[in-house]
Amino acid sequence: MTQMTQGREDASPREFRSRVRAAEWAAPTAGVCMGYAQANLAILPATQAMDFLVFANRNPKPCPIIEILDPGCPEPVYSAPGADIRTDLPKYRVYRRGQLEEERSDIVDLWQDDFVSFLIGCSFSFEKSLLDAGVPVRHIELGRNVPMYITNIQCRPAGIFHGPMVVSMRPIPGGAVARAVEVTAAMHAVHGAPVHIGSPEGIGISDIDRPDFGDPVPIANGEIPVFWACGVTPQAAALAAKPEIMITHSPGHMFITDVRDGELLDFMSGLGGALK
Amino acid sequence: MTQMTQGREDASPREFRSRVRAAEWAAPTAGVCMGYAQANLAILPATQAMDFLVFANRNPKPCPIIEILDPGCPEPVYSAPGADIRTDLPKYRVYRRGQLEEERSDIVDLWQDDFVSFLIGCSFSFEKSLLDAGVPVRHIELGRNVPMYITNIQCRPAGIFHGPMVVSMRPIPGGAVARAVEVTAAMHAVHGAPVHIGSPEGIGISDIDRPDFGDPVPIANGEIPVFWACGVTPQAAALAAKPEIMITHSPGHMFITDVRDGELLDFMSGLGGALK
Repeated sequence: MTQMTQGREDASPREFRSRVRAAEWAAPTAGVCMGYAQANLAILPATQAMDFLVFANRNPKPCPIIEILDPGCPEPVYSAPGADIRTDLPKYRVYRRGQLEEERSDIVDLWQDDFVSFLIGCSFSFEKSLLDAGVPVRHIELGRNVPMYITNIQCRPAGIFHGPMVVSMRPIPGGAVARAVEVTAAMHAVHGAPVHIGSPEGIGISDIDRPDFGDPVPIANGEIPVFWACGVTPQAAALAAKPEIMITHSPGHMFITDVRDGELLDFMSGLGGALK
Repeated sequence: MTQMTQGREDASPREFRSRVRAAEWAAPTAGVCMGYAQANLAILPATQAMDFLVFANRNPKPCPIIEILDPGCPEPVYSAPGADIRTDLPKYRVYRRGQLEEERSDIVDLWQDDFVSFLIGCSFSFEKSLLDAGVPVRHIELGRNVPMYITNIQCRPAGIFHGPMVVSMRPIPGGAVARAVEVTAAMHAVHGAPVHIGSPEGIGISDIDRPDFGDPVPIANGEIPVFWACGVTPQAAALAAKPEIMITHSPGHMFITDVRDGELLDFMSGLGGALK
């Protein structure tokens, strides 16, 4: 199993994906190909895809779309040309009618001609920017998963998809909160500025020490809890809608794109190629 | 006809729309309800709507979506609750297979249960911000339409929709170009930062004095042509695809939303309601 986890961090995304495809890597992707944007995956049949896309458009903070693949097309032609969405993630989850049915290392034999795949931005990108700007990120320091909470902020519904916004929380020292806002506001391609700063009760969180997903982290004296929209939101809404079939990445086992974090904004504005 | 053009500029959007609905206003909307976001309209049958939405997502700079209405629903429940998209614009254009068939003052009897309506951001919003920031806007000074050009930047295609990016140009004094970038970059809800600054040839414009749409404007000594993605882009791409039927606003006869220009970013992030 050592072989499964010893991929060089400085592999190119293309090299890393081919290693995953060859079943040489089945571990989580945190720290892999540092500097390149990682993406959440959601695959739905065309009948639900339009509603899901409208849901994402109506709620872009929790659902920043990096790429929508053409129906039946497994190649992310813009963010990772040559890649295959059916084989290039370390682990997948298959849900039927909202129930987790199985985890598997590829989905080739499940593929349908009407599958529409969505690659959705991931907070790994802005956490690196926070660290680069000198803003501490507690759960990384502690080697834990980020704490996530179901809020009382209702997403705008679309078709069968609806539900509350899920947020992630990072405790930030009072003197660094403005910097954290500045840094992430500039990254509106990945969740953008915080949706709430301070009082957890203000957004319906009753116990900050008991997150709904992920791990709790301590908030030190002089620190303020800062809440960002979280990419778990669309997955939770989609699963609650109980579609016949839905395929996602396994938590932490993301898709690695060819887009550098710093290029993400230009890429998502449609100009990535044009300006080179 | 005087009655048609004498609507008070300070009417509320709701008042103004009811005046339009009562056929008391049939003129262009420039200067109407200053401070409220105006929107381009595109209506397509559901069969083309998904491709069009993917096109907009792949090219958000020219196609910033303010609201997608549910199929068959004529009410923009988020940006203008109570409004009716079939009656509340001063003038509509009906295209069949890409050909302009007629202009009319309402589309009630053309409405189909599968119509999906898109409200798309309009540069009126960022021009007001430029003026507020002390950046001169030449075509407004001259009382002309903004000059628009077809570029050699190809949009990312989606389904039947494809085509070049159309840009608008404003000549800006060298000392104010950075300010113009700052101001519009912050308005990524409406076209965002310029896509090109300086050489028109760089983006395939051979004669700056002969725009493809709108009116030419002079570029004074010490001024630089600055190019922004333009909302004409999706309409041009959609018409080139020759859908069975497509309905749009008539040029300049926009839909007035209840969203203030300054709130547009929050509104489009899905948080407009949540944060109040």
